Amino acid sequence: MTFDLLLLAPVGAILALSFAIYLALSILRMDEGTDKMKEIAQAVRIGSQAYLKRQYLGVSIFFVVVFFILLAMALKNYLVIFVPFAFLTGGFFSGLSGFIGMSIATQSSNRTAQAASKSLNSGLRVAFSSGAVMGLTVVGLGLLDLSVWYYFLNWYYSCHAIPLGTDKIAAITSTMLCFGMGASSMALFARVGGGIFTKAADVGADLVGKIEAGIPEDDPRNPAVIADNVGDNVGDVAGMGADLYESYVGSIVATSALGVAAGLGVAGVTVPMVMAAVGVVASIIGTFFVKSKEQADQKVLLAALRKGVFASSFIVAVVAFFLVKATLGVENLGIYWAVLSGLVAGVLIGLCTEYYTSSGFKPTRSIADASLTGPATVIISGIAVGMMSTAIPIIIVCVAILLSFYLAGGAANFNIGLYGIAISAVGMLSTLGITLATDAYGPVADNAGGNAEMSKMAPEVRKRTDALDALGNTTAATGKGFAIGSAALTALALIAAYREQIIIFGKDINASMMNPPVLVGLFLGAMLPFLFCSLTMRAVGRAAGKIVVEVRRQFKEIIGLMELKVKPDYARCVDIATAAAQKEMIAPSFLAISAPIIVGLLIGIDAVAGLLVGATISGFVLAVMMANTGGAWDNAKKFVEEGHYGGKGSAAHKATVVGDTVGDPFKDTSGPSLNILIKLMSMVSIVFASFIIKNTLFK
Amino acid sequence: MTFDLLLLAPVGAILALSFAIYLALSILRMDEGTDKMKEIAQAVRIGSQAYLKRQYLGVSIFFVVVFFILLAMALKNYLVIFVPFAFLTGGFFSGLSGFIGMSIATQSSNRTAQAASKSLNSGLRVAFSSGAVMGLTVVGLGLLDLSVWYYFLNWYYSCHAIPLGTDKIAAITSTMLCFGMGASSMALFARVGGGIFTKAADVGADLVGKIEAGIPEDDPRNPAVIADNVGDNVGDVAGMGADLYESYVGSIVATSALGVAAGLGVAGVTVPMVMAAVGVVASIIGTFFVKSKEQADQKVLLAALRKGVFASSFIVAVVAFFLVKATLGVENLGIYWAVLSGLVAGVLIGLCTEYYTSSGFKPTRSIADASLTGPATVIISGIAVGMMSTAIPIIIVCVAILLSFYLAGGAANFNIGLYGIAISAVGMLSTLGITLATDAYGPVADNAGGNAEMSKMAPEVRKRTDALDALGNTTAATGKGFAIGSAALTALALIAAYREQIIIFGKDINASMMNPPVLVGLFLGAMLPFLFCSLTMRAVGRAAGKIVVEVRRQFKEIIGLMELKVKPDYARCVDIATAAAQKEMIAPSFLAISAPIIVGLLIGIDAVAGLLVGATISGFVLAVMMANTGGAWDNAKKFVEEGHYGGKGSAAHKATVVGDTVGDPFKDTSGPSLNILIKLMSMVSIVFASFIIKNTLFK
Repeated sequence: MTFDLLLLAPVGAILALSFAIYLALSILRMDEGTDKMKEIAQAVRIGSQAYLKRQYLGVSIFFVVVFFILLAMALKNYLVIFVPFAFLTGGFFSGLSGFIGMSIATQSSNRTAQAASKSLNSGLRVAFSSGAVMGLTVVGLGLLDLSVWYYFLNWYYSCHAIPLGTDKIAAITSTMLCFGMGASSMALFARVGGGIFTKAADVGADLVGKIEAGIPEDDPRNPAVIADNVGDNVGDVAGMGADLYESYVGSIVATSALGVAAGLGVAGVTVPMVMAAVGVVASIIGTFFVKSKEQADQKVLLAALRKGVFASSFIVAVVAFFLVKATLGVENLGIYWAVLSGLVAGVLIGLCTEYYTSSGFKPTRSIADASLTGPATVIISGIAVGMMSTAIPIIIVCVAILLSFYLAGGAANFNIGLYGIAISAVGMLSTLGITLATDAYGPVADNAGGNAEMSKMAPEVRKRTDALDALGNTTAATGKGFAIGSAALTALALIAAYREQIIIFGKDINASMMNPPVLVGLFLGAMLPFLFCSLTMRAVGRAAGKIVVEVRRQFKEIIGLMELKVKPDYARCVDIATAAAQKEMIAPSFLAISAPIIVGLLIGIDAVAGLLVGATISGFVLAVMMANTGGAWDNAKKFVEEGHYGGKGSAAHKATVVGDTVGDPFKDTSGPSLNILIKLMSMVSIVFASFIIKNTLFK
Repeated sequence: MTFDLLLLAPVGAILALSFAIYLALSILRMDEGTDKMKEIAQAVRIGSQAYLKRQYLGVSIFFVVVFFILLAMALKNYLVIFVPFAFLTGGFFSGLSGFIGMSIATQSSNRTAQAASKSLNSGLRVAFSSGAVMGLTVVGLGLLDLSVWYYFLNWYYSCHAIPLGTDKIAAITSTMLCFGMGASSMALFARVGGGIFTKAADVGADLVGKIEAGIPEDDPRNPAVIADNVGDNVGDVAGMGADLYESYVGSIVATSALGVAAGLGVAGVTVPMVMAAVGVVASIIGTFFVKSKEQADQKVLLAALRKGVFASSFIVAVVAFFLVKATLGVENLGIYWAVLSGLVAGVLIGLCTEYYTSSGFKPTRSIADASLTGPATVIISGIAVGMMSTAIPIIIVCVAILLSFYLAGGAANFNIGLYGIAISAVGMLSTLGITLATDAYGPVADNAGGNAEMSKMAPEVRKRTDALDALGNTTAATGKGFAIGSAALTALALIAAYREQIIIFGKDINASMMNPPVLVGLFLGAMLPFLFCSLTMRAVGRAAGKIVVEVRRQFKEIIGLMELKVKPDYARCVDIATAAAQKEMIAPSFLAISAPIIVGLLIGIDAVAGLLVGATISGFVLAVMMANTGGAWDNAKKFVEEGHYGGKGSAAHKATVVGDTVGDPFKDTSGPSLNILIKLMSMVSIVFASFIIKNTLFK
């Protein structure tokens, strides 16, 4: 019975990938538009591929080095021999899903612009399909990787000795847990590198183009305009995809490990894996709900997107009930309520994010209002809104934690309570296929707008792509909230799994906050997200500075550029941003990976536990604050541009532009990178647990 | 032997107060300057008194209400009957030290300006003496209050039944612990109300005066100029004094309680009390080191101030050794190292703050550098610097925690380790008399500059007061770092004392981070400082808006104002800022006081422990970040004003003015208020512990 159900996981994986291929092919069959449109799209495509190629090259060096470190550790019996290989596949599939998502996104921008020349709804369909390819690829590849490893280890441990004297299923989940580190590392580089690239190009293009030269956004004369469009793809598509791939895989493996610890055996693994498969089917069904009449307005379109997400969530909510009942029995039906609380929490955090960042509501309006007294008050009110906006998501996550722990039965059996918390993360992420689709659709719409502008399409097309883009801003903010919330829950599951791993190695953690190493770990952990943000923001500043210099040089040296007689050297800007991003992502990445190892070696495993919890709580709050502040500034600027407080060109508008520029690294570089920081540190701690136990100075 | 030593505490108190009176009298004998100077000083004095009067009136309502709540709780046996009265005296003495410090500060500004017309050094002497009055009043009144309660309770419990079946000394310390809540509450109102007042007046005066009307800072035509000067006194003098009064008293009572828990008996109380007395003497001696040649430059003056602090620290470091040896015996000499690590940590945090906020070093220079690309990059680089600056202070505090715990002997005896952490806070605060003097000197110098400007003294006088003011900015930043660091250590001591209190009531806390209520508490606690900052920043915005409206009205309606024929209505602006501050401080105060009670009643005492730790770690990091960001912005602006990057009036200067304006509520309202938030929440938890234990929904 149980075995049969687990087979649904690879089936779901194949289903997701097949449907993604079907959608991709149908996009590729669509009208590419005029030659000019094709040409621009190709430039963006080439730039994006060049970026990814260079990134993957640099990252592969990292992967090879870490692979050999892990291999050496495995040969010294710190790790099971499969971990180094699992590390590679985790990284590979994460990178692959980023690559596929970005490829289809860069194929879709001109097709979206072309479709938008017919109607808003046609444009939406193309952009959304592109997002769906990304979403389904992420869940498909994630589930595939998990299934292959599960069945391989299951077979292997059936005919070989099981390490550490545990039983088979514990050995399987313990090994699979480590495999998340590959996905985490890849996600880090994708998020941080992509985040630096996208904002360096954006800020650099704006500072010289819009402010100094006075040409509009997306003007083809701006040498950094292609780099700006490339940035949307490498940051918001590939980066976001890798981030959520990691959460998805991480939450499932952590839940499995905790399920085994709770004594649920194979059933503890079956539930999260099959839930993910159910989510795939639900997501595919959900995509069919995303449609509306041809001449729909923005509100209707948003409702259409929502309908897709709600339909998927509803399907998961119903099927999960029977799944839990069949697998874990009526006595463990509490687990179902844990799933449900995660699912509902994800939706609520999204809605809350929308309230704080949409210009339809009071908070963002108050920032626009502050623009009348200049940039300083825009900044102060923006930060105040962002800080305020942390309260409700935190309370939602807290309620989800308590509900999932106690409803799962944590009062009687502590480990099953932890399993409940972990599975609420799986519940939240089960509909990732479609939530990611609504999110990854945004950059495509953004690029479509750029394409329409540069290819000089009719003004109503640009107006439609602007409407799609604005809708994309809303869904992007929602998606960010969702990504942060799921990262926090996943991190908690991973921290609990870290403790399990320590127990497997025959030690235990004194996790009391009164234990000084834990307390010190908490302090250090709370500080790390701030340090990490500082590093990434400075990186954006330096990289943007290089773009500024280059754009100024081209404006000065290329004669005939301003008269549109000669084309600027787009590729040069892409190159510079790429090189800068690669260089700048080293320091923050090193911090994220080395911090738990250093703390562990110096102050011991208890301090690492404190570090992880401290970083998770502080990183969660800071990430929400930065993402929402940035989103609210962006939309406050758009609100003024719509004609309020003097509209475009007014002093109020200039004040909001300052806010928006500050918000760029907040919402697109530093804030989202924190998701990875907190998950990756847990992963590193898990993988290096036995090494630290044996080599720490502080025993 | 022990009894004899403890008598040093009241002796120290009387010594401190006597020397403060002596200094105050010598200030009052000094030359008040011209009639114009007297007149301006009087306006500031009247405004400050009016503010404090109104604040104390409002606060006294709060105190009466809480007194009766506590009385009701005492009558229902939730509390010892002395707690409500101790609550009153704690608040009264805290308020009194704020009042005295502010009175002498407002007497000193014109005298400082007058003295500065002779030499820089003369000006420094007056301003520093005024600060010393404040510093010694705070420690004197604090130590007096502690001594009186100690001896009273000691006598009372000698002839009456001891509650809860504990021994006498435990009953004394448990009662005295609660007394900190009065000081905390008063500090909250002083910091938050004063912080809102000072920045509302400052921002309001600048927005209309400097930017709209184009008149210089401190121009007598600006109707808000007196309010601005009043603000320095009520925020930076009275607010800072109340904050540190609370840390001082809080760290001593928490240490005493933990000493009893560690089985040290009366000796555990003697050490912190007598250490404080030693610190008084050391501080008084230290003030004599603060002098230099008549025509000294700024560097020499800073060295002179430092010499005073270092001399005091050295004396405490030496005497504490013999004190610990005599009181606790050679076997507990580790406690001495705990004291020393706190003392050194305080000095190091100060130096680190200076590095990050002084324009002599790279971080602040980098912000000035960013001014060339406009306000947005000034903001981004400032926040990046502020975030970066959190790392070292956190590491310093972590090292101090580990050292003081383990050197005190925490590995063998957990409770003595906690005592070590607590006494490191006492060590850090022992030299408060002089560190507060170097800090409270700043606002006096600032006001002296305002006085010189408004009374049209010779330009070199203004130049000298500007130099004093700049020096004051450095010491203010150092002082803020010190205030935050000591608040964090004090909060930790209070949290440990909270657990002790729970144990006395026959329960215990499961402080494991894996315990879901603790985890939820940590999340909520990490979020609260953000919410609190949001509330206080918005409060400043709203209050400043009211000032803006009033200043604009006066400029428009008062004919002859701009031609200096008619004086503006200064008092009106003071009134408006006062009323606004009183109104706006209600919401954040309510949050700070109610949060631990609500969390306790809903999720239990474990969650409260998580809440306190979460708020302490996140509040500490955020407070450092906000204080340093604001300080660095301020000094980056001053650096540009000195003639760099185009100097005053350039685009770069305007960009740094935006940074400075954003930094105002960061460094003077929200950041410093966080110190109180974390201490007050612990205090409230201690006082309401038994009430929550009996009435929580979550048992």
